[in-house]
Amino acid sequence: QKQSRLRGRSDCQIDRISAREPNRVLQSEAGVSEFWVSDENDELDCAGVEVARHTINTKGLFLPFYANAPELVYVVRGSGIQGSAFPGCPETFESSSEGAGRGKEQFLDRHQKVFRYKEGDILALPAGAVHWTYNDGDTQIVLIVLRDTSNVANQLDRNFRKFFLAGNPQSQQVGYGQPEREHAGGSGGWGKQKLHEQESSNIFNGFDDQILQEVFKVEFNIVNQLKGQKDNRGFIVRADNFDVLIPEKQEYQRSSPRNGIEENICSTELRANIADPDRADVYNPRGGRLSSLNGHKLPILNWLQLSAEKGVLYKNAVLAPNYNLNSHSIIYVTSGNSRLQIVRNDGTAVFDGFVQQGQLIVVPQNFAVVKKAGEQGCEWVAFKTNDNAITTQLAGRFSFLRALPEEVVANSYEISREQAKELKYNRQEGVVLSPTSGSTRQKGMNALLNVLFS
Amino acid sequence: QKQSRLRGRSDCQIDRISAREPNRVLQSEAGVSEFWVSDENDELDCAGVEVARHTINTKGLFLPFYANAPELVYVVRGSGIQGSAFPGCPETFESSSEGAGRGKEQFLDRHQKVFRYKEGDILALPAGAVHWTYNDGDTQIVLIVLRDTSNVANQLDRNFRKFFLAGNPQSQQVGYGQPEREHAGGSGGWGKQKLHEQESSNIFNGFDDQILQEVFKVEFNIVNQLKGQKDNRGFIVRADNFDVLIPEKQEYQRSSPRNGIEENICSTELRANIADPDRADVYNPRGGRLSSLNGHKLPILNWLQLSAEKGVLYKNAVLAPNYNLNSHSIIYVTSGNSRLQIVRNDGTAVFDGFVQQGQLIVVPQNFAVVKKAGEQGCEWVAFKTNDNAITTQLAGRFSFLRALPEEVVANSYEISREQAKELKYNRQEGVVLSPTSGSTRQKGMNALLNVLFS
Amino acid sequence: QKQSRLRGRSDCQIDRISAREPNRVLQSEAGVSEFWVSDENDELDCAGVEVARHTINTKGLFLPFYANAPELVYVVRGSGIQGSAFPGCPETFESSSEGAGRGKEQFLDRHQKVFRYKEGDILALPAGAVHWTYNDGDTQIVLIVLRDTSNVANQLDRNFRKFFLAGNPQSQQVGYGQPEREHAGGSGGWGKQKLHEQESSNIFNGFDDQILQEVFKVEFNIVNQLKGQKDNRGFIVRADNFDVLIPEKQEYQRSSPRNGIEENICSTELRANIADPDRADVYNPRGGRLSSLNGHKLPILNWLQLSAEKGVLYKNAVLAPNYNLNSHSIIYVTSGNSRLQIVRNDGTAVFDGFVQQGQLIVVPQNFAVVKKAGEQGCEWVAFKTNDNAITTQLAGRFSFLRALPEEVVANSYEISREQAKELKYNRQEGVVLSPTSGSTRQKGMNALLNVLFS
Repeated sequence: QKQSRLRGRSDCQIDRISAREPNRVLQSEAGVSEFWVSDENDELDCAGVEVARHTINTKGLFLPFYANAPELVYVVRGSGIQGSAFPGCPETFESSSEGAGRGKEQFLDRHQKVFRYKEGDILALPAGAVHWTYNDGDTQIVLIVLRDTSNVANQLDRNFRKFFLAGNPQSQQVGYGQPEREHAGGSGGWGKQKLHEQESSNIFNGFDDQILQEVFKVEFNIVNQLKGQKDNRGFIVRADNFDVLIPEKQEYQRSSPRNGIEENICSTELRANIADPDRADVYNPRGGRLSSLNGHKLPILNWLQLSAEKGVLYKNAVLAPNYNLNSHSIIYVTSGNSRLQIVRNDGTAVFDGFVQQGQLIVVPQNFAVVKKAGEQGCEWVAFKTNDNAITTQLAGRFSFLRALPEEVVANSYEISREQAKELKYNRQEGVVLSPTSGSTRQKGMNALLNVLFS
Repeated sequence: QKQSRLRGRSDCQIDRISAREPNRVLQSEAGVSEFWVSDENDELDCAGVEVARHTINTKGLFLPFYANAPELVYVVRGSGIQGSAFPGCPETFESSSEGAGRGKEQFLDRHQKVFRYKEGDILALPAGAVHWTYNDGDTQIVLIVLRDTSNVANQLDRNFRKFFLAGNPQSQQVGYGQPEREHAGGSGGWGKQKLHEQESSNIFNGFDDQILQEVFKVEFNIVNQLKGQKDNRGFIVRADNFDVLIPEKQEYQRSSPRNGIEENICSTELRANIADPDRADVYNPRGGRLSSLNGHKLPILNWLQLSAEKGVLYKNAVLAPNYNLNSHSIIYVTSGNSRLQIVRNDGTAVFDGFVQQGQLIVVPQNFAVVKKAGEQGCEWVAFKTNDNAITTQLAGRFSFLRALPEEVVANSYEISREQAKELKYNRQEGVVLSPTSGSTRQKGMNALLNVLFS
Repeated sequence: QKQSRLRGRSDCQIDRISAREPNRVLQSEAGVSEFWVSDENDELDCAGVEVARHTINTKGLFLPFYANAPELVYVVRGSGIQGSAFPGCPETFESSSEGAGRGKEQFLDRHQKVFRYKEGDILALPAGAVHWTYNDGDTQIVLIVLRDTSNVANQLDRNFRKFFLAGNPQSQQVGYGQPEREHAGGSGGWGKQKLHEQESSNIFNGFDDQILQEVFKVEFNIVNQLKGQKDNRGFIVRADNFDVLIPEKQEYQRSSPRNGIEENICSTELRANIADPDRADVYNPRGGRLSSLNGHKLPILNWLQLSAEKGVLYKNAVLAPNYNLNSHSIIYVTSGNSRLQIVRNDGTAVFDGFVQQGQLIVVPQNFAVVKKAGEQGCEWVAFKTNDNAITTQLAGRFSFLRALPEEVVANSYEISREQAKELKYNRQEGVVLSPTSGSTRQKGMNALLNVLFS
């Protein structure tokens, strides 16, 4: 499959990569949103993406919006209801007739399909479609969201643009979130920042009252509410009265009547679980597991040209050194921590350190990376900028070394044929490697050797 | 279908959009060409397109050329003959044997397919192919042409480059067309302007006379004419003697013998009518109609990754507020006028005014727009930068509001369930809305309410 | 088929094109590498490619690497063994059991497919895959390599990045190769140059010794060799002991067992001959021949979105003037020389001169070009930035003129119908034109005419 990403950059110097906390925050009535906003020429900018984390309280409704770029969402915690409306798709869900008088035809509400999601799900939000979500559960929802501003779906520029259809995001309170590189206490600088949500009103604000009244055929006070100029709830609002029903067991009906042209988008699945242990693609009982979700498993990802990976490493286990052959990888640690080393084409480590729970790190395409879990183990989700992301292993049973003839290995590294065999075959495990129980004595010897030969 | 557009811009500030007249003009012997040339960071530049309008007099021949970007043409007025030559395609048209001596084999002229077009047609001109057109009618032809310089077919840069194969465009007279932002009366500035046609000779000029004589095996005087250095007719020339014949009823023969590899491009249709009322996709007898022409209807548009829409609004009718989900929209008003409001993601109206006949306006991807016809009604053609452009309605029977559960509507706008129903269902019409016969009294009340509650 | 190339440039002024020698050189133990590195806004930069020429001595091994962009290789001279390792592909080649004790199961070496190539072959190197090559022949291998840094496979920026998996390229000796535009004798400027190979160590250098020991389960001294910090052989090393066996007749087995998902890439052919006379697509016994290799003949080229052309012109023969409809053309002369004229859209010749053996020249998309072989004839290979590159002829049997009605030709050039016939039909040959035996008298007359009429 062909892929294509759009780049504004002709030169991307990546001298140093950071494990990042969000650098912006916005408070809403029923939740909080945090953002990883890119600076010029940093690794997020070079990867052409932005990331957000939304925390939605119980009974919180994320107001309907559309965006100029697709988003890929991982549900870190909680469960809720998601609606994604596509133009031309039919309103196939009907509301229940609550205590209805029988024999008398009642005016029922109809709307497009909604579905339930839960912790460990991936949600695909196509660009341009209208999305909203609601927390009908008992716990907070935490969502981590990749915004692929370089996606081909976006024709304008590389800024992420969110178009709210309700509310008045402008008035919401700004929390901590000073820009990373500015001195604390600075003021007045907010106006120039790349935080589009902050400056936004909903798009109905730009239309004339008279015209809105005309097209909706409603009273002036409703138009007023449509514009939401006095709304100060932010874009996650509290909705107490919310009885949207969905089938208990999500029964996906391919046979439901559709309207021709947009058939596939109307009936396509937008959600898949990636965290269930029994969905693992790679499993080592002594090391951990990996699950990937690509366009083969969730076809909408072919459209979005994105995919995702969920990883679990047990205490001190190692993810074999590898590189992403055809994508960037944007990693968010959901629990524990890991030590990562990320290596550039010239052999320089551009990152060597720990990535903690709640932090984000970018591994650019082709850069080599090794990951070793800390004492609490590590879980993460990685977003990849290709619908069929491929990684190449640099060690282990799937290493490129296995693909090379012994002679090539021996001559490349100036080692004997016997040593080449060891390099190719000593590590029998594949992608997830169990920790070696290195004795203290061996470690001491190694340290000594390091001193002597370096 | 995947689409991809190439962008040189990583940041596109669109603070204000204008209804534009052409800002350049070139006179030719048998016609005049006007151009909408983009400035840095204006909305044409951000959309990655340029637009031209050619007026071709009776018996005018637009000289053969090829370009580095595809063009999509709408025939505003007149009718003519179009030839588009593709390398490797067969010469399937033969000239008639005028008064020929029978029994004696005659040397006939052969050439590739030509076809007739008329007012209301869309013509697709693939990049790199050789195109010419001739006005064999009784009236002027007026063509409005989108040049998609950001198209994937163009690998070099975002400048539009036209390669003429005849004539000497350099010598033609320059008319009014001062750059929009310069003071009138300024002189000497033409040399630096982005007007590629003006500076052009035909490409044979760059070749050595000796080599041209050798490759064509013709006399020197013909080479001289090939280069056209003394030609001062411009690129629309008068051709009195012009007997190219085409089948009276254009009979499209899929079964004609073709030459393998390039089969599809040789036999593909390059023209379709978009203005006939009976081709309307949307029709409201009280409001007007819309016709779209996309890759499903004219497959060459899949190749060009462009499509078009023809709209007619009756007096005071409204095109429901909407946004282009996956394309920019470049609108040219062919008759009457409309009031437009175009709204950015932050709720700001970047345009609020009238667009008159002969003016052009760009609606960037995802920006919301509402259009209300003036007293004479309005007709327009819109070029879209996607072969299957989709719009989302913000009001009316196809509104996103219909796709949302009532609870979402009520909670989003802080209105009652009953009011949410009104917002969802009051306007029963779809895309084209008839004017509401608002009584004077109602308007007065609204004005009052505006004062009281704003 | 859709194609898309990524461009960082929004404006590419091409005022002058040069026939270029390589401007960088790197010495290795068993070979030498020369590079055509682009400067800002020159024609290589505008075409979005770089070019390299590797000379590999007998018994030379080009160390394993992967790159962020696909490469297309033409084998100018010699023969060798190529290995390209893809993640997930099976190790289908086994080493021979040399003098093995029968009855006793022996540990054999296994690796992925390797294949033999020879002079006149094109090799396709997909981005991200691991490649190595070995010269097991008696003569030097000379490879000319196109690096398509603007390819969609590359998501980061337009720099070519080569990731070596062995060796220590940093330490190799730098030869002549001063930048083209600097004064000779200048020093100290190397540090800022775009020569990524020079600054590179292999990527294992960026990883911690401890971690490498752990993941490979090998002794410290092997890790030391893996990093190759004391290796000073460059990236083409001498490998005396090298017994990799390959089937004598390369038998391509489509029926071999594969592993599902990556089936096509594992079994795809990466090599095809383009130089054998009996593969010619165009042949004129008085002029020469042309062979093209595109995605129809070698499907991996569809993936790479690249193709190639091999041309042979006899003494003084002419390649009819033409332009590349949908690609750039990067021409490398393998023997003899040719006079070229390259013409821009405004009719200006941006190149008029001879291109000698060993020189490179870029013909940008849509620019017109004519080529006339010198006294020794000329052979070349042209790399094209489209998997199905198409050229349009401007003269000869396939000229666009044949596609135009006589009336269009006559009126465009202001010539008679009879002269239009001559222009269309006088040259009966197609793409490769035999030299015209112009008598001295005719040439004299032409010179006179030139004086009189110019």
